[in-house]
Amino acid sequence: MQKQVPFGEANRLKFPEQVVIAIAKDAAGKCNPITLGWAMQTSIAPPMMAISIGLLRYSHDVFHNAGEFVIAMPSEQQADETLFYGTKSGRDLDKLAEFGANVQPAAEVDGVLLADAVANFECRKAGELLTGDHTIFVGQIVCAHANEVELRRLYTIGPGYRMGGLARE
Amino acid sequence: MQKQVPFGEANRLKFPEQVVIAIAKDAAGKCNPITLGWAMQTSIAPPMMAISIGLLRYSHDVFHNAGEFVIAMPSEQQADETLFYGTKSGRDLDKLAEFGANVQPAAEVDGVLLADAVANFECRKAGELLTGDHTIFVGQIVCAHANEVELRRLYTIGPGYRMGGLARE
Repeated sequence: MQKQVPFGEANRLKFPEQVVIAIAKDAAGKCNPITLGWAMQTSIAPPMMAISIGLLRYSHDVFHNAGEFVIAMPSEQQADETLFYGTKSGRDLDKLAEFGANVQPAAEVDGVLLADAVANFECRKAGELLTGDHTIFVGQIVCAHANEVELRRLYTIGPGYRMGGLARE
Repeated sequence: MQKQVPFGEANRLKFPEQVVIAIAKDAAGKCNPITLGWAMQTSIAPPMMAISIGLLRYSHDVFHNAGEFVIAMPSEQQADETLFYGTKSGRDLDKLAEFGANVQPAAEVDGVLLADAVANFECRKAGELLTGDHTIFVGQIVCAHANEVELRRLYTIGPGYRMGGLARE
C-alpha cells in the first residue's frame, strides 16, 4: 500500500543507482570528467546513451560546447576516483591529472578512455534537451571498449555518496 | 586496460540495471504499464524523471499522446509482474487486469499507482526528444508515494531478463 510522501523521501528508495563518468574536452583542450548517477541507454540501432548534467556545473558548458565525449562505466575499484570526479570542479583543476587517472586514447573521438573502467563508450553528440535544472545530452556510440579483465560495475549504494560493487543474488 | 569490442559486448557489462514500470492511459481510457530499464532522474528543482520507450512499442504512442503518467519503482517481490509488463503488449490486452495488478488511484494525475511497488511518482509530461529508435519522455513529478513497508527495489541482474533484488555490501 502506498502513502503520499515528500519527493525526497520516496527518491531515497532509488538506491542502488548506477554511476557513470562522462569525459569531454573543455575550451582549453583539457579532458574533463564528471561523475553522474543520471544516465541511461536510449537507442538500440544506432546505439545511444543519455546523460543529465546540472546547469550550474562546469561540465554543463563543456558538454554543451563539445561535439563528442566518452561515457565510462567505472569499476568497483574506482570508488575513490569516481567520488573525486563527482565532488571536484574542472573550473579549478585538471581532475584527471590531479587524481593521477589511468587513461588511454580514444579511437574514434578526440578524448580519453578510463583504462581501469569496466567499459568505455565513445559518443558523438546527437541531441540535447533542457529539463528543469539539468540538460540531457544524448550521444550516439561510435566505438565501444571493455576491460581486458572482468570487473564489477560501481554503484551508489545509498545516500551520501556511499559507493560500492553489488553482489548478485 | 581497455580493448575495442562490439557495442553489444561492452553493453552486456552494464548489469545490474535498475528497472521501472511506467503507466499511462491509452486512447481507450485503459491504464497501460510498460517495464523499462532505461530511466533516470533529470532535475532536482523541480523534480523530473526521464524514460526512454522504443518507437515500435504500443506504449510509445500512448506516452506520446498522454499528458501525464506514473513511474513506479517495482519491489523485488514484483519480478513476475515486471516481466509480464515488459514482454506483453497493451495492443492485445489489458495488462493490469490480466495480471491482476494491485493498484490504487493516483492523487494528482488521472491514473493508478502500483500498490506493491517501493515507490510511485506521478508525472506531468515536460518534454520529449527523439533519440534513434526510442523517444525520451520527461515527466515533472507532481506527487510522490512510498510503500508503507520497507521493500528492496527490483533490478535486471543480467541478460535475458533475469531480475532480482540486490544485496548491498
